[in-house]
Amino acid sequence: MSEADSDAPLRGGIDLGGTKIEAVVFDAENQAKGSARHPTPTSGGPADVAAAMGVAMHEAAQAAGLTTAQLKGVGVGSPGSVDGANGTVASARNLPGWDGSYALGQELEHALGTRVVVGNDVQVAITAEYQLGAGRPYASLLGVFWGTGVGGGLILGGTPWRGRGGAGEIGHMVIERGGRRCPCGNRGCLEAYAGRGAMEARARKLIADGRDSDLPKIMRDKGRTRFTSSVWAKALEHEDPLATELIDQAVNALGAGIASAVNLLDVEAVIIGGGLGVRFGDPYAERIRAAMKKHLFPGHQDPDVHLTGLGDLGGALGAALLV
Amino acid sequence: MSEADSDAPLRGGIDLGGTKIEAVVFDAENQAKGSARHPTPTSGGPADVAAAMGVAMHEAAQAAGLTTAQLKGVGVGSPGSVDGANGTVASARNLPGWDGSYALGQELEHALGTRVVVGNDVQVAITAEYQLGAGRPYASLLGVFWGTGVGGGLILGGTPWRGRGGAGEIGHMVIERGGRRCPCGNRGCLEAYAGRGAMEARARKLIADGRDSDLPKIMRDKGRTRFTSSVWAKALEHEDPLATELIDQAVNALGAGIASAVNLLDVEAVIIGGGLGVRFGDPYAERIRAAMKKHLFPGHQDPDVHLTGLGDLGGALGAALLV
Repeated sequence: MSEADSDAPLRGGIDLGGTKIEAVVFDAENQAKGSARHPTPTSGGPADVAAAMGVAMHEAAQAAGLTTAQLKGVGVGSPGSVDGANGTVASARNLPGWDGSYALGQELEHALGTRVVVGNDVQVAITAEYQLGAGRPYASLLGVFWGTGVGGGLILGGTPWRGRGGAGEIGHMVIERGGRRCPCGNRGCLEAYAGRGAMEARARKLIADGRDSDLPKIMRDKGRTRFTSSVWAKALEHEDPLATELIDQAVNALGAGIASAVNLLDVEAVIIGGGLGVRFGDPYAERIRAAMKKHLFPGHQDPDVHLTGLGDLGGALGAALLV
Repeated sequence: MSEADSDAPLRGGIDLGGTKIEAVVFDAENQAKGSARHPTPTSGGPADVAAAMGVAMHEAAQAAGLTTAQLKGVGVGSPGSVDGANGTVASARNLPGWDGSYALGQELEHALGTRVVVGNDVQVAITAEYQLGAGRPYASLLGVFWGTGVGGGLILGGTPWRGRGGAGEIGHMVIERGGRRCPCGNRGCLEAYAGRGAMEARARKLIADGRDSDLPKIMRDKGRTRFTSSVWAKALEHEDPLATELIDQAVNALGAGIASAVNLLDVEAVIIGGGLGVRFGDPYAERIRAAMKKHLFPGHQDPDVHLTGLGDLGGALGAALLV
């Protein structure tokens, strides 16, 4: 490693989402120096996902004017059950063929030629918000990452709360017993109403049953194969009735689920992030806050509600902080 | 204070519930040396409740062969929003006329002639379970106190989590959007289906509307004015259809609400206590565990579920531990 490198070591961060892979190179001041984005493979298995992550990180390094081997290390924020000690990821249900355990860290170390540290995606994102983003003024936070799934991250008394490694499954809190089937197999979970994946499945079913909607056309026009957050945003701009209806239902579901979590934990603030959360921005953070209101326990002080302060790069930045 | 007193100081504990006041004197080995139980006043205000607490504690001390002034101190576990530093209690919604703040600690110090420390009822109870009861093998616990209301207490990483003072309102997690009206004013809360108070209100309404039930007769035969936990237990023994239906609904609601909390927090164990929980015992703890099953996140290891190890006296013992 050259002297210049050790003076200002660059770190990589990869945010592995259900829809996209975001790879970013950060400098010591946490400024992005290069980035690349690829869609998450929708078929194949963990090895295909790992290969796409490797390509994205190589491109991000190139954009920053160096090779991945020159990075101090690369952090990964992954969905699923993460074992940070050995870099394995299991049960990443929103990724293709990823039911078992896969040595993601080891595989990426081979591909990138540098040290790789793997953490849970929502936990690294909420830690970044707490340290550097919208969560800085608070000691207790609930992060709600509204994307393909609905993930949650907890900071309690200044410390991440991980439970036995799986804490934060706010998307699988029950808001409607006997309600809609969730991708997890249970019924009535928040994610069944608000997850991008579940909303897309429901929209496609309703369209197949004869409901009219511009969602498929907008998707094709954008050259996508899925109803991504930008597809939903465009459909809302066009006041597409089906998209509007499903997003309204999602906002109401988020209000009930987040209020439930707040009633249990009495945290100071809620941070809204994730692909849809960032895309829809402050007006929707405000709508979610309003939807929480009727479910918040009257004996409590209401929590503050903020949009993520780190935006789309928060996940990758949180991952880089693992290094 | 005599030399014998300082060798083995006795402490008082008062568990202030929505139905009954339990006052107990404990020795240094946490053995009960005397106790008294009074129904919680159903009318009047905080001063009437405080007076009944004072009478109960005097009787418990007398049963232990001493006066309250000879106690090292008295701890109180109270519902509502408790400020431990100044001994005030606010917004104790299941107690009569207790919407504002009341100096409960100061009032009891006058009445008892000894130091009084006030804590939140479910927080002192879960701390007692963690230190001395069914929670001893675990570092993270969710206590569910199924009584007049449904309260929750949290131990996370060996430390009580209190939020901004109000954490643990598991009874006000939403399990059914747009569902039954809760005593708190919101709709669809767990407590609206499982709280003894809400169940009694619903039973009385259904009986007034013409449903047949032995609940009122059992209540009168027992010399009670409310459907206490012993009234419900007797009605279940008699296979009273209305009581059976409402208790079945309560068990299902508890399953959904507790599973939601566990999905969020990934705690090691759930401890079931409270007036109804203790009265119904292990068979109902097992029924609640079974009802949780269909809502637990499939990617997690299921938590252990236990009945309180300290039984009916857990609340008073936890209160005494405050001294």
